[in-house]
Amino acid sequence: MSKSGLVITAHPGDFVWRAGGAIALHAKRGYRMKILCMSYGERGESQFAWKEKGATLESVKAGRKAEAEAAAAVLGAEIEFMDAGDYPLGNTPEMLDRAIDIFRELNPSFVLSHALKDPYNFDHPEAAHFAQQARVIAQAMGHKPQADYTYSAPAMFLFEPHQPEQCDFKPDVLLNISEVWETKFKAFQCLPAQKHLWAYYERVALNRGMQGGRNSGKPMVHGEAYMRLFPQALEELV
Amino acid sequence: MSKSGLVITAHPGDFVWRAGGAIALHAKRGYRMKILCMSYGERGESQFAWKEKGATLESVKAGRKAEAEAAAAVLGAEIEFMDAGDYPLGNTPEMLDRAIDIFRELNPSFVLSHALKDPYNFDHPEAAHFAQQARVIAQAMGHKPQADYTYSAPAMFLFEPHQPEQCDFKPDVLLNISEVWETKFKAFQCLPAQKHLWAYYERVALNRGMQGGRNSGKPMVHGEAYMRLFPQALEELV
Amino acid sequence: MSKSGLVITAHPGDFVWRAGGAIALHAKRGYRMKILCMSYGERGESQFAWKEKGATLESVKAGRKAEAEAAAAVLGAEIEFMDAGDYPLGNTPEMLDRAIDIFRELNPSFVLSHALKDPYNFDHPEAAHFAQQARVIAQAMGHKPQADYTYSAPAMFLFEPHQPEQCDFKPDVLLNISEVWETKFKAFQCLPAQKHLWAYYERVALNRGMQGGRNSGKPMVHGEAYMRLFPQALEELV
Amino acid sequence: MSKSGLVITAHPGDFVWRAGGAIALHAKRGYRMKILCMSYGERGESQFAWKEKGATLESVKAGRKAEAEAAAAVLGAEIEFMDAGDYPLGNTPEMLDRAIDIFRELNPSFVLSHALKDPYNFDHPEAAHFAQQARVIAQAMGHKPQADYTYSAPAMFLFEPHQPEQCDFKPDVLLNISEVWETKFKAFQCLPAQKHLWAYYERVALNRGMQGGRNSGKPMVHGEAYMRLFPQALEELV
Amino acid sequence: MSKSGLVITAHPGDFVWRAGGAIALHAKRGYRMKILCMSYGERGESQFAWKEKGATLESVKAGRKAEAEAAAAVLGAEIEFMDAGDYPLGNTPEMLDRAIDIFRELNPSFVLSHALKDPYNFDHPEAAHFAQQARVIAQAMGHKPQADYTYSAPAMFLFEPHQPEQCDFKPDVLLNISEVWETKFKAFQCLPAQKHLWAYYERVALNRGMQGGRNSGKPMVHGEAYMRLFPQALEELV
Amino acid sequence: MSKSGLVITAHPGDFVWRAGGAIALHAKRGYRMKILCMSYGERGESQFAWKEKGATLESVKAGRKAEAEAAAAVLGAEIEFMDAGDYPLGNTPEMLDRAIDIFRELNPSFVLSHALKDPYNFDHPEAAHFAQQARVIAQAMGHKPQADYTYSAPAMFLFEPHQPEQCDFKPDVLLNISEVWETKFKAFQCLPAQKHLWAYYERVALNRGMQGGRNSGKPMVHGEAYMRLFPQALEELV
Repeated sequence: MSKSGLVITAHPGDFVWRAGGAIALHAKRGYRMKILCMSYGERGESQFAWKEKGATLESVKAGRKAEAEAAAAVLGAEIEFMDAGDYPLGNTPEMLDRAIDIFRELNPSFVLSHALKDPYNFDHPEAAHFAQQARVIAQAMGHKPQADYTYSAPAMFLFEPHQPEQCDFKPDVLLNISEVWETKFKAFQCLPAQKHLWAYYERVALNRGMQGGRNSGKPMVHGEAYMRLFPQALEELV
Repeated sequence: MSKSGLVITAHPGDFVWRAGGAIALHAKRGYRMKILCMSYGERGESQFAWKEKGATLESVKAGRKAEAEAAAAVLGAEIEFMDAGDYPLGNTPEMLDRAIDIFRELNPSFVLSHALKDPYNFDHPEAAHFAQQARVIAQAMGHKPQADYTYSAPAMFLFEPHQPEQCDFKPDVLLNISEVWETKFKAFQCLPAQKHLWAYYERVALNRGMQGGRNSGKPMVHGEAYMRLFPQALEELV
Repeated sequence: MSKSGLVITAHPGDFVWRAGGAIALHAKRGYRMKILCMSYGERGESQFAWKEKGATLESVKAGRKAEAEAAAAVLGAEIEFMDAGDYPLGNTPEMLDRAIDIFRELNPSFVLSHALKDPYNFDHPEAAHFAQQARVIAQAMGHKPQADYTYSAPAMFLFEPHQPEQCDFKPDVLLNISEVWETKFKAFQCLPAQKHLWAYYERVALNRGMQGGRNSGKPMVHGEAYMRLFPQALEELV
Repeated sequence: MSKSGLVITAHPGDFVWRAGGAIALHAKRGYRMKILCMSYGERGESQFAWKEKGATLESVKAGRKAEAEAAAAVLGAEIEFMDAGDYPLGNTPEMLDRAIDIFRELNPSFVLSHALKDPYNFDHPEAAHFAQQARVIAQAMGHKPQADYTYSAPAMFLFEPHQPEQCDFKPDVLLNISEVWETKFKAFQCLPAQKHLWAYYERVALNRGMQGGRNSGKPMVHGEAYMRLFPQALEELV
Repeated sequence: MSKSGLVITAHPGDFVWRAGGAIALHAKRGYRMKILCMSYGERGESQFAWKEKGATLESVKAGRKAEAEAAAAVLGAEIEFMDAGDYPLGNTPEMLDRAIDIFRELNPSFVLSHALKDPYNFDHPEAAHFAQQARVIAQAMGHKPQADYTYSAPAMFLFEPHQPEQCDFKPDVLLNISEVWETKFKAFQCLPAQKHLWAYYERVALNRGMQGGRNSGKPMVHGEAYMRLFPQALEELV
Repeated sequence: MSKSGLVITAHPGDFVWRAGGAIALHAKRGYRMKILCMSYGERGESQFAWKEKGATLESVKAGRKAEAEAAAAVLGAEIEFMDAGDYPLGNTPEMLDRAIDIFRELNPSFVLSHALKDPYNFDHPEAAHFAQQARVIAQAMGHKPQADYTYSAPAMFLFEPHQPEQCDFKPDVLLNISEVWETKFKAFQCLPAQKHLWAYYERVALNRGMQGGRNSGKPMVHGEAYMRLFPQALEELV
C-alpha cells in the first residue's frame, strides 16, 4: 500500500503558495496526497473576484473552487472542500468528524497545516487547531469504536505564513523542492487573480533554497520551510 | 572513508550520562567517534575523590582521567582531554585553536554538546559556546589558510542536562538507544563514585524511550533526548 | 475629513485607567475618538454597586453606564455599548458584525485594546481577540460586498493591564500624556467606587512618564505604556 | 474550619498520575480534598476497556467511574464528575456555573489543574482554562449576588503533563511526597488497564525527588513537580 | 547560629532601591544580612557628584562609599566593597575567589542579586552572573579543598530593575515590606543626590504592595518584587 | 547642526546588505552617516580573496578595506575601521574607549547594529554587544569626566541577519528604501566576490517592501527590516 500525506488549509491559495512544493514532491515519489480545504476563501481572499460585475457569494465560491481544483490537479493531489465559510472560519462538529474519518482512512505519514499563530489572519490558526484536534481524536478508541482501522498520529509540519516572524514561525526543516519547482509554479498560474504573489513566493522559494544550502553544505535552489510540531524518534542522528 | 561524530563536553561524566547511547550507537554503526573532554571535572564533579585521604588536585585528575578513558573505551570512542580546569571552565585561545583543528581533521557528520543554558553549572554552556565557535571558525578560509582540508559545518545536537526544564531544554529528537543500552550501562559502571546517578539516568532512558514510542507509534525501550540547533535540509519529509 | 481612533474595551474602567490619556490627547488634537465598551462590567467589576441595598443587575448596569458615559464625555470621546455581559464576556456574531461596521465607518488611524493575555481576567484577552478579528474581517471584500467604503486595517496598540508582567506586557511605546493628565484624572473621578485605584494609576502614570524620559532623553511627567502589535512602515527611522 | 484543596482534571487518570501525591499529602494533613473530574476519559483514555467484548459507551464510562472513585478514596479525597464527554472535552455554561459554586463552597487554599498547553491532548488545556475561569468568576460579586459566601481566589498550581517540555512545563515547585508515596502507588493500582504507566510515573516521582534534593540541599525521595501560576505574597523570603 | 542573607549588587543605589525592604525585614527578624557591593558606581551612577567642583575619581568614590555605608547601617546590614570599577564592571578572578569565600563563610539562606538581563545597564547582569558563579563554585569540593565548611547553595532571588519589562523581569514573589517601609525610606535619604528616585521607588513599593494584596487576598501596603531563580522544594503547597 | 546616524558592524558586507538602504536614505536626507566597521572580515568572510594565488592576511585585508570604502562612499557615509580581527572578533578596551568617543562626538539620533543572537556567526552578537556597551557608557559622567559634550543615548535598531528566524529577529520597523534602492544596489556592486548575494538581498528587499505595504496599506517597493531595542517615547500614536 502506498504512503500518503494530508494537507489541511483554511483557503485555496494556502496550499499552493505554502505547501505546493511538498505536495508535488511527495506525489512524484508515489505518495497519495490529499488536500482538505476548509473554505473557498470566498469572503476574505477573493478581492479580484468581487471586483467583477455581478459577483455573488455563489459565483465567487464557484470560481475559487475551480481554481483550487486545477491547482490540486497540477500538483498531483486529491482535494476535498468543507465549505466552512471564511472570515471567520466556521468549522462545525460535523466537519471535525469528517476530518477524523479522513485521518483514519488515509493514515497519512505526515500532515501539513498552518502556523499556530497568525495575527493577520485568524482563519489560519483556527485551521491548524482543527487539524491538530482531528489528528489526536482519530486515536481515541472510543470515537466510533466499531470502526475497523489502523491509525497512528502522524508527524505534523507547519508551513510558512506570509510574514513568518510575526507568526513565531521558525524553520526546523528546509525541504528541497527544486525538482518540482516548475510544477509548483504552474500551480501558481491557476490563481491568475493573485499574480502579484507569484513573484513574491518565487523569491521566498529561492531564498529558502539558499538557506537550505547554507545549513547542509549541499546546494539547494528552491526550498520550502516547515516547523516540526513533535519530536522525531530516530534510529540514527544523521 | 568512514563517517565520524564529535562530542564536546565540559566534564567526563557528561558524555556518559547524556550522550553515551549516541556514542555507542554510532560507533557500532561504524562511525569514528571522538570525545573532546575539556576538563577532568576535578574541582566540581569529584566529591567522592576529595573525600579520600591525601587527595590532591593531581591525584583527583588522574583518577577522573582513568575513569573517563575506561568509559570512552567501553563506548567505542577516542577521547582527548584539554585539561582546561573546571569551576570555572578555563578555556584559552590555544584550546579553541586545537578544537578548530579537530573539526577540520574529523569533518564530523554531527557534533554533540551541552545545552546553551544551565543555571546549575556554568561550565556547561561555556563548553557549548566553545563548541559552537570552533564549529563556525573551522569554516573560515582565512583561519590557517594554507591548510588543505574539506570541511562543512556539521549538524549540532544538544544533549540532555540534569534538570532539562530549568535549562530551556526541549527535545527535538528522541534517539532509540535500546540496542546499545547494555553498553551505555557498562560505561556508567566506570564511574563508581557516582553510583547514585546510575539509576537516575536509567530512569531517564526508560522514560525518554516511552516518549519516543508515543511520538512515533513504534515501541522504543531506551531513549536519549536531543535538541537540534539548526534547520534540517531534507529531500523528503519522512 | 478628520482622523479618528477606536478603543475597544471589555469593561468601563479599562478605557479610563489604561487609555484615558491617549483618548484625551488625540481628542484634543482633533481626532474623532470612539469607545466601544463591550459590557458594563456589571458582574465582575462593580463590587461597590452590589453592596448597595436593593442592587439588581439592571440597576448596577445603569449605574455603570452613566459613569462610563460621564468619563467618555470628560475625555472627549463618543461611547457605544454592546451589553455583552461580563464574567464571562458574552460576545455574539451580531456583535462582531457591528464591530466590523464600526471599523469600516470610522476607518480609524489606530485601534486600542487589551493585552492578549491576562490570567486575572479572561474578559480582557477575549475583548482583544474580538477587536483583532473585527479589524481583519473589515478588510474582507466579500463581507457585505455591496457596501461602499474605504478601509485599511489600522495600527493596533495594546494598553497596560493591571499587572503588566503577568500578562507578558512589554511596552513598545511610552506616550506623553502630560498635557492631558488633568483631564484623565477628572475621568477617574467619574468612577467614585474605585477611588482606591485613582492613586494607583496616578503612580503608574508618573512612573511611566519617568521611564519615557529615560528612553528619550527628554523629560516626560505623565505617560501611558502601549505594546504595538504590527511592524511600523516608516519613511525615516527617527 | 479545616482548610481545603481543589483538583480539576479532564480525565480520571490525570489526578492519579499527576497530583496523587499532593492529594494524599494534604488529605493526611487534614485538608478537605475535592476532585472535580470533568469526564470519564471514556473515548480517548480507555483503550483497554474498548478492547473488551461488548463494550459500550455506558459500560466504559461506568468502569472508569468506578476506578476513579476507588482511586480518590485511596487518596482520601471526595470526587465529583461532570460527564462532559472527552475528545473533545464538552464543557457547558452549566458546568462552569457548577464549578464556580464549588469554588465558593470550598473556598480552597489552592487549586490544581493541567498545564496551559498540551499539543498531545487538547482536553488538558481546555480543563485548565475552565478551572481558571471558574476561579476568577467566583470572585465576581454580581455572579449570583444574593449568595452568602467568603471567597478569595486561591493559589493555582499546574501539575506535570506526560511530556513536560513539549507543554512548556517548567517546575516552580518540587513537592516532597515521600511520606505518601505508598498511598499514591496504591491509587495507581486502581487503574489496572494502564499498568504500563505505573513504572513510568514511579520513575518520574523518583527523578523529581532527586531534583528536589538538589535544589534544597535536603534529601527527597519521591517528588511531584508543579508550576505556580501567580506570584506569591510572602512575609519572609525563606 | 543565626540565619543569614547575602545581597550582591553592582552599585550602591541598587541595594537601597531594589532590596532595601528585604534587607531591613530580615535584619529585623534576626538574620545576619551582608551586602557585597561590587563597585562604588563612581563613573556611571554619580552624575551629581561629578557636577561638584574639583571632583576626582577618588573623591567621588569616597563620597559614594560613605553614602552606601550609611544606608547599609540604616538597613541593619554589613557591607563589603570590591572596588571593581563600573561602566564597565571590572570583576577579576580574585574577586570571584573572595565572593566564593563569602558564600562559604556566611552559608546564607538566600542570595539577592540583579535581573539576568538589563539592556540599560550591563553592569547589572554582569553582577548577577558573578553572584551565580560564586554560588555554584562554592559547592565544588575541589575548590580550596582543605577548607572546613558546611555549604549548600542557597535560594536565589532577583530584585526589580528600573524598567522591569525591558529586562524580562516577571515577579514570582511580592514581599510584604510594610513593617520596614520607614526604614527603607530612611535609607533612601542617605542618597541625597538621587532625590528624584525617592518618590519613584515609593510609588513602586505602593503599587507592588497593592499587587501583593490582589494576589493573596490579604492587604499589603508596601511590597518588593522578586523573581525566584530555582524551583522550591516544599513539604506542603501553601 | 545636522543630525547624524551611526552604524556598527562586525564585517564590511554587513552594512551593505543589511543597512545600506537606511544609510543611503538618511545620507540623502542630510544626516551625517558614519560606519564603524570592527574588522575587515578577512578570515571568515573573504573566501574568494583567499582563493587568489599568493593571498596573505595583509593583502586580503587591504582588498576588503578598499571594497568597504568604495561601498561607504556610494552610500554617502564616512567609514572608520578598528582592525579588531574576525572569527573571532577581537575587540579590546581601547576599541571600546574609541567607540565611546565616537558616540559622544557624533551624538547620533540612532545607532544600527547586529541582532543580539546569531548561531551562525558569533562576531555579530559580539559587535552588537560592543555597540550597546559603548552607547551606555558614553552616558557615564565619570568616564573621561573633563570632556565637554552633550550626549543622550540614541534609539537603537538591529538590522536583519541572514537567517532572521534562527536569530530571533522579529521586525518592528519596515523602512521604505525604495527611493535609494538604486544606490544600495550600486553598493552591492562594490562587493564583486559576493555576487551570489546580490540577488538574494534584492529578493529580501522586495519581500520586505511588500510586507511594508501590507502593514501600512500604502505601497512600498523595497524595504529593510529592523528591530527596535528600546520603547519609543511619543507625543502622538500615529
